Amino acid sequence: MSRRRAMLAAAGLATAITGCKPAEQSTDKAEIRYAKNEILMLVYPRFTTLDLIGPQHVFALLGPEFKTRLVWKDRSVVTSDTGVPVTPTMTFDQCQDNPAILFVPGGTDGTLEAMEDPVVRDFLATKGATAKYVTSVCTGSMLLGAAGLLDGYRATCHWLALDTLRQFGAQPIRERVVVDRNRVTGAGVTAGIDFALTLTSLLKDDEYAKTVQLMMEYDPQPPFDSGTPETASPEAVELLQAMSDPFLRNVEDAIARIKN
Amino acid sequence: MSRRRAMLAAAGLATAITGCKPAEQSTDKAEIRYAKNEILMLVYPRFTTLDLIGPQHVFALLGPEFKTRLVWKDRSVVTSDTGVPVTPTMTFDQCQDNPAILFVPGGTDGTLEAMEDPVVRDFLATKGATAKYVTSVCTGSMLLGAAGLLDGYRATCHWLALDTLRQFGAQPIRERVVVDRNRVTGAGVTAGIDFALTLTSLLKDDEYAKTVQLMMEYDPQPPFDSGTPETASPEAVELLQAMSDPFLRNVEDAIARIKN
Repeated sequence: MSRRRAMLAAAGLATAITGCKPAEQSTDKAEIRYAKNEILMLVYPRFTTLDLIGPQHVFALLGPEFKTRLVWKDRSVVTSDTGVPVTPTMTFDQCQDNPAILFVPGGTDGTLEAMEDPVVRDFLATKGATAKYVTSVCTGSMLLGAAGLLDGYRATCHWLALDTLRQFGAQPIRERVVVDRNRVTGAGVTAGIDFALTLTSLLKDDEYAKTVQLMMEYDPQPPFDSGTPETASPEAVELLQAMSDPFLRNVEDAIARIKN
Repeated sequence: MSRRRAMLAAAGLATAITGCKPAEQSTDKAEIRYAKNEILMLVYPRFTTLDLIGPQHVFALLGPEFKTRLVWKDRSVVTSDTGVPVTPTMTFDQCQDNPAILFVPGGTDGTLEAMEDPVVRDFLATKGATAKYVTSVCTGSMLLGAAGLLDGYRATCHWLALDTLRQFGAQPIRERVVVDRNRVTGAGVTAGIDFALTLTSLLKDDEYAKTVQLMMEYDPQPPFDSGTPETASPEAVELLQAMSDPFLRNVEDAIARIKN
């Protein structure tokens, strides 16, 4: 990248890293002009924390022109599925249209509850209609699907729940990150980091994304090779499938209710 | 693994995944017997969210016999360096000795402020003295060092700040995860996932850790190869070094003050 571009990138990173203020809760009228650079990240009771925080770390390094919001119906604390109490920074009512990114993290029972909530589906459908990118990680794509945002799109999901996407008219794809027009979806949990670096390269450019990767020292060295059903032991795969059976049955029931 | 062990593992995972309750804020006397299975994860103003949440996700899958706490001086909200407001679930005063894990996430200015706070250093020194594992990710190792917990140990840190560990009597090691006796440290930010899977294999066994890896679909596929100073462009390395210079000078000053 050019020297000037590099310095701009560095300035963005530096502000993002050291200048972070909790003042993102502002709803100042003057901010309306930034609506296109808003990144609306849904939080909800029992969302999966790492689905959110992998991408949120990357998005926070996009520079000060982007505003990363944690959005929910109200500002009351939502507790994630690993027990982390997070305070939303913006309510549905305060969100502008035309966000740069609409993002949805996954979960299990909490995701089902959110899928069955018409207020959540309406919010996602409305913001998704005008978002530059409509995105998710893990079972967050089920929520996008329930809001009608994946009909006719290629998309991915956690490997255990991938096939459910068919019921929303989506074409399930077993890839880590799937980009189809402005829909960008990531596979299970940890795929959120690969997903967000991919999205960063689309929103900025490859050089910027590579600098973010260096800043977060993303040089993964898993101690084991067991991250997919193809590489894990058959017994581990069978165990997790058995564990997820009740959840997947509940998904079927929820989808039937939503469609009625 | 044996069938029985596998089912136990699955039960642990299932409870961890679907049965998570925000009830972890309990300080019931009956829980004292679990002190050895407590996982004390420090949070503080402007900690790096992903340093915490990568490991926290993994630890939450260790099963119901482990209690993951987010600990700080009080229960008031702490906002991370990427603007995520998190509510601590336990105060310093409520923490038992003999935790299974004492964990410290990194950050930049917030980490410096915590290093210079004698209440934080005392807490870490006291709990670290009786912890089964004393651990950190990213610049969290500077905080462990400031609390006197790395003197004579091999340890790692974010690549930009690794050399500062010498000042605490530690031997800086450029590896992703460093295990020296009961000190387990991870490199920058995303190393937390590799770190936590390694620690899971120590606390449980390899098979359990591999099942967790499959559950979180940890099959990293970075879109670029730019996660270390050796693989990134020289320009990106130079930029981040220039950006971090003021911080590293502040670290030197803080260490000088702590030592006086």
